[in-house]
Amino acid sequence: MPRDKHVAGKIPPHGGKLVDRVVRFRERAERMIQGLPAYELQPTKDPKTGLPIRHVGHEIVSICYGFFSPLEGFMTREEVESVLKERRLPDGWLWPMPIVFDIPEEDLKKLGIKEGDQLLLMLHGKPFAILDVDEIFKYDPKELATKTFGTKEAAPGIVQMDFDAKHPGWLQYASTTGTYIGGKVTLINEPVFDEPYSRLWTPPKKAREEMIKRGWRLVIAHQTRNVPHVGHEHLMKFAMLNGDIEPCDAVLVNAIIGVKRLGDYVDEAILEGHEMVNKAGYIAPEHHMVTFTLWDMKYGHPVEAVLHAIIRQNMGCTHHMFGRDHAAVGDYYHPYAAHTLWKQGIPGLGFPEPPHETYKGVLIKPVLMKEILYCRKCGELVYTGCWCNHKSEWSKFSGSFIRSLIIEGVEPPPLIMRPEVFQVIMKWWEKLGTPFVNKTYLSTRKIPPFDLKPMEYSPKK
Amino acid sequence: MPRDKHVAGKIPPHGGKLVDRVVRFRERAERMIQGLPAYELQPTKDPKTGLPIRHVGHEIVSICYGFFSPLEGFMTREEVESVLKERRLPDGWLWPMPIVFDIPEEDLKKLGIKEGDQLLLMLHGKPFAILDVDEIFKYDPKELATKTFGTKEAAPGIVQMDFDAKHPGWLQYASTTGTYIGGKVTLINEPVFDEPYSRLWTPPKKAREEMIKRGWRLVIAHQTRNVPHVGHEHLMKFAMLNGDIEPCDAVLVNAIIGVKRLGDYVDEAILEGHEMVNKAGYIAPEHHMVTFTLWDMKYGHPVEAVLHAIIRQNMGCTHHMFGRDHAAVGDYYHPYAAHTLWKQGIPGLGFPEPPHETYKGVLIKPVLMKEILYCRKCGELVYTGCWCNHKSEWSKFSGSFIRSLIIEGVEPPPLIMRPEVFQVIMKWWEKLGTPFVNKTYLSTRKIPPFDLKPMEYSPKK
Repeated sequence: MPRDKHVAGKIPPHGGKLVDRVVRFRERAERMIQGLPAYELQPTKDPKTGLPIRHVGHEIVSICYGFFSPLEGFMTREEVESVLKERRLPDGWLWPMPIVFDIPEEDLKKLGIKEGDQLLLMLHGKPFAILDVDEIFKYDPKELATKTFGTKEAAPGIVQMDFDAKHPGWLQYASTTGTYIGGKVTLINEPVFDEPYSRLWTPPKKAREEMIKRGWRLVIAHQTRNVPHVGHEHLMKFAMLNGDIEPCDAVLVNAIIGVKRLGDYVDEAILEGHEMVNKAGYIAPEHHMVTFTLWDMKYGHPVEAVLHAIIRQNMGCTHHMFGRDHAAVGDYYHPYAAHTLWKQGIPGLGFPEPPHETYKGVLIKPVLMKEILYCRKCGELVYTGCWCNHKSEWSKFSGSFIRSLIIEGVEPPPLIMRPEVFQVIMKWWEKLGTPFVNKTYLSTRKIPPFDLKPMEYSPKK
Repeated sequence: MPRDKHVAGKIPPHGGKLVDRVVRFRERAERMIQGLPAYELQPTKDPKTGLPIRHVGHEIVSICYGFFSPLEGFMTREEVESVLKERRLPDGWLWPMPIVFDIPEEDLKKLGIKEGDQLLLMLHGKPFAILDVDEIFKYDPKELATKTFGTKEAAPGIVQMDFDAKHPGWLQYASTTGTYIGGKVTLINEPVFDEPYSRLWTPPKKAREEMIKRGWRLVIAHQTRNVPHVGHEHLMKFAMLNGDIEPCDAVLVNAIIGVKRLGDYVDEAILEGHEMVNKAGYIAPEHHMVTFTLWDMKYGHPVEAVLHAIIRQNMGCTHHMFGRDHAAVGDYYHPYAAHTLWKQGIPGLGFPEPPHETYKGVLIKPVLMKEILYCRKCGELVYTGCWCNHKSEWSKFSGSFIRSLIIEGVEPPPLIMRPEVFQVIMKWWEKLGTPFVNKTYLSTRKIPPFDLKPMEYSPKK
C-alpha cells in the first residue's frame, strides 16, 4: 500500500470540476438582474412552532461557491427521482439527498413566472442570486422526506425507527411547499460576514489554495456543531494519526452553520472555540484550520455522511473522520450506521457499495473512529476501539454535564474542557447574553448570517 | 482507498511460501544425522573483549521456522553478492542483508568436509541442525560489513559517519572468519524454552493461526528490545490508529532476543514487561500479543527495517510501525533514515524504491511515526508530528533517566512507567540479581536461550 495518490488541495473535486457560480463584477451583476421578477427568500418554518428550520439561502451560497460540486443549482424532478432511487445524479455521480428550491404556490402565481424565465432571489431586502427557472414541478413533501432518510423495512438494523416530525431533517423536507423550481443558480452579490465568520470564510477554492500554500499533503476533515471539549480535541488528534503511511499533516475543522435549535451552542462560540484549540496550541496552527459551511443540518447520519464527504473533498481534504452517531439525532439510525456504510454499503438506503469504492463515488478516504473516553486507571483519554479494557474506570464525556456546569457559570475541569476554550464561551455569553441558543437569540439572529451590499435594481416594467 | 486487501494471518509470506524446515519426528531426525561429521556451534566474539556478539544458532532457528522466509539456509556467494549489490536474492525477492554461516578455516580442515557433504551442527553439546554444504567460499569480512551498512559517499545525508568496530552490527559481520558455508539448513531438534520464553514462543505459522483465531483483520508489528515505558506504550497505541479505513485490531509486540550488551534490560523483564501491558489492561489482551524472534540485532536502521518488515509479514502482520532511530545505535544513520526509505527509497543503499512499492517487495504497510513526548501544558503524552506546539513544555522519555531511577530502586512516576511494569523489573532483579545485563549475567546466560533434548547420534566411523 503506497502513499495516497491524492494530495490535499489537489484531490479532484466531486464530479471532476469545482463549481464556481459567483459573479464577482458588480456591474455585470447589476446588468444581469435588471428587469427580472424579484422574490424575497423566506425560511422554511416549523408548522407547529413557527420557528425557522431551514433557509435556502444557505444552500444557494454552498452551491455557488462549489461546496456542493458538481451541483450547479436546484434539482429538477429527474434529478430528485434519480437521487431518491439510486443516490446518484442522472449522469451517474453519487449524490445522497435532494437539494430543492420550494416556493409557495400562491407566490409562484403572483410572480407569474414560467419555465425558461429567470428569477431574482432577494435576501435581507437586497439582490442576492439568480435562479434559472428550468422546471416547475410538484412532489409530495412527505414522500421526499421519507425517501431521503429511508425506512425500517428497507434498511433493517440501520434505520431503527420510522422518521417523523420530531426528526429535524425529515421536518425540513416535509415542510417544503410541494412546489419546486429546478434550475441553475448564480450568486450575484457576495456575502459580507461579521467576525468571526469573516476571517474563517474559506470556500473550496480558497481552502485548496491554503492547503497547497501550507504544504499539507494529507488533511482530515472534522465535522462539528459543538464547542470542542477535550474529547472532541482528541477525536481530531487520534483520527489525524490515520493518514497513509504517515499521519495526516492537518485537520480541517468544518463547522456546519445554519438554522439553530434551542440549546445549541451559539455559532460564534463554536467557531472561536475551535480556533482557540490552535491559538492555545493544543493542535498547532500549522496542523489545524477552522472553516465553516452554510447548511441546515439534515441529521441524516449515513446519508448526510456522504454529503459531508463530498463537501470536504471539494474543500480539498484527503480524509474524513466519521465517529459514532455522525450527524445524528435521536435513535433513528444505528449509532454506527455510517461505519456500516463505509465498510460495506447499505443497499436498503440505496448504497449497494461503500461510497468511496463505487463508480463515480467519492475519492476522500473515510476514517472510522469509535468513542473516546477518559480512563481513570490509564489516567488519560483512551480510544475505546483497541486500547485499554478498564471499562469500570471509563468516564464518558457528557455534553449535557458540561452544559449544566456552564449554565451555572462553573468552569469545567481542564480534563473536560480546556480553560482557554471555556473563556471563549464566556466571552460570547457576555456579548450575546446567552451561552446557548434561546428564543431571543433565535429571533434576533440574521439568517443566513451575513449582510449583502446594496445593488442597483429595477424590476420589470 | 478501500479497505486493505491483506488480512492479518493470511497476508502472503515474503517470497510467497512460508518456510518450514523443522523435523518434528524424533526417529526421522536421528536417522538423518547418523554418520554425519559434527560441529559444535560457537558464538562470534568481540576480538577485543572476548564477549559474545552473535550466535548463528539464533539465525538457524529463525530460518527453519520461517521467520526469514523465503530463506531456506545460509547464503552462497552468489546470494551474498546479489544482496550486497541489489538488496535482492538472485530470484528477485527483496532481501536487505547477508545471512551467512562462517567457520574457522582450521575447523573446516579438521572436519574434512567438502561441497556436497552435510554437517551436523551441535548446540549445548546436543544435535541441533543439519547444514547442507552446497558451497564453501571466502569473502572479506570487512567488505561484507561495510557493504551491508553503506557508506557516507554512497548515501550522503543517510549514512552520517562511516561504520567501524564501535557499531555492533558492523563488528558482527567484520568478526566473522572470512570462510563461509552456503546451503540449506534443517532444524532436527526443537528448542525447549524456559518461561517466559516458552509461553511466548510464537513462530510465524502459530502467530498466523492465532491472528485468524482471534478474528484480527489488521495487526501492526511493534519492534522492541526494551521494557516498555509509557512512551513505548503510546507509540503502540498511537500507531495502531493507522490501519486502513479503521484502526488496527491489535499490536503484535515482537521482541528481538539475541546476544545481550552490557546495560541492556534482561530479556525476561522485556518480555514480561510487555506482557504486563496487556495483563494490566493498558492495551487489552484482545488487542495485544507478545512474541519474540531470535536474532542478534545488527542495528542496521533502514537496512534492518526491511528485515523487520519481512519477519513481521511472515508472522502475519499487515502493518509495521517505524519510529525515530528504528533499530539504530549511535549517529551512524540519520535519525529518520528508515522514514526516508519507506517514503522514497534510498538509492545509495541499494533501495531505489520504497521496499513496499517495488517488484517482489514487501506487502506489509509501513506506519511512520515521529516522537512521543509528555507535554506539561496539554497534561498528556503528545505525538510531536502533528499535535501541539508547546515545545518548551515538552519532556522527553529518557531511557537513561528511567534506568538511573531503577538502579537506585526508585519506582518511576506512573506517568513514566506503569507501576505493574516496574514490578516486573523488580521481580527479575530479585531472580537474576540484576535489572540490567552485567558481566555475571553475560557469562552465565545460555546462548541461544533454550535447551535441547538428548538425541541418539554416532559420528562417522
